[in-house]
Amino acid sequence: MSFSPLIRELIDQLCVLPGIGPKSAQRMALHLLQRNREGGQHLAMALLNAMSEVGHCRMCRTLSEVETCPICSSPQRDPRLLCIVESPANIPAIEQATHYSGLYFVLMGHLSPIDGIGPEELGLGLLVERFEAGIDEVILATSPTVEGEATAQYIADLASVNQTKTTRIAHGVPVGSELEYIDENTLSLAFHGRRNLDINN
Amino acid sequence: MSFSPLIRELIDQLCVLPGIGPKSAQRMALHLLQRNREGGQHLAMALLNAMSEVGHCRMCRTLSEVETCPICSSPQRDPRLLCIVESPANIPAIEQATHYSGLYFVLMGHLSPIDGIGPEELGLGLLVERFEAGIDEVILATSPTVEGEATAQYIADLASVNQTKTTRIAHGVPVGSELEYIDENTLSLAFHGRRNLDINN
Repeated sequence: MSFSPLIRELIDQLCVLPGIGPKSAQRMALHLLQRNREGGQHLAMALLNAMSEVGHCRMCRTLSEVETCPICSSPQRDPRLLCIVESPANIPAIEQATHYSGLYFVLMGHLSPIDGIGPEELGLGLLVERFEAGIDEVILATSPTVEGEATAQYIADLASVNQTKTTRIAHGVPVGSELEYIDENTLSLAFHGRRNLDINN
Repeated sequence: MSFSPLIRELIDQLCVLPGIGPKSAQRMALHLLQRNREGGQHLAMALLNAMSEVGHCRMCRTLSEVETCPICSSPQRDPRLLCIVESPANIPAIEQATHYSGLYFVLMGHLSPIDGIGPEELGLGLLVERFEAGIDEVILATSPTVEGEATAQYIADLASVNQTKTTRIAHGVPVGSELEYIDENTLSLAFHGRRNLDINN
């Protein structure tokens, strides 16, 4: 091998990043060593801090090193709306695309008995407490996969005990796509989920 | 913003990596936090070690934390062949593609008076010492750019003082490409650099 041990080690470790193979890792390592050692050191400190400090928000279970995450502790958010998502990455996506002003609850996964992920692993006990405290609407934004649908159905059943209004985000033909290239399942969902057009509007 | 401060800081710092924008950085940060905290910690340590320890090989100037890099200290390499490259990344490329068994000299750049990079910055004093110690062949493998060519010419002049045999790697049509799509400069170089075919071979 043409690199010294510490450089080889750095290239190997950069490959833990998703989507980074040995070629990109080599490019990253040499870039930092030749042009931005300070940046490399700052990155190392940010990694160490985040890996050791970040836990979960006590309200919504998202990743956070503060006890209550920025959204749950914001007085501008409506605490009577609750949107259920599978992963912390879903939150910025919804925040950017919509004007949603309620709170979130992050499952950190979906029901998957085969992997040993049941209601307890998804923190559904905590969710039931939220329902009991009073919620006007629960928006189920889990993925449109078999597991995501099963999880949504399970949570809808929990919510119905408290007569909480429960909605599911719409699944159908994405904006800008051509009908003839849409897969069967999506088109079938779009057909079943058709809405009345209000002509007087 | 929907992330807590330490996660935001990690996403920002991951953007120092070449080719990584905010979206990929977010994906990397959440991946490490959710699935591989130990990997993230190992990466941080590898970064800290490499950023603080790695210097330059005293023989060839490549990046190395050991005084003499693995190639320069290998008894299997022929010390009378010297290949001049611009960057440490060029060495694994040559090692993988060729059976070259000599040593390297890494300029860590090319002559560029406008950026204040002269012979001294490229360690050419050290290179002249190597020529004086006796080299059978100097292979100039700098890039086929204006600066790379000027640097190659400058080093060829230095080598000629000691009557050292000097060669330049060939530039021409890359293997597998179509002649009609090759740029003018490359085709012109390929024409000028044409070789006799030895029919008796």
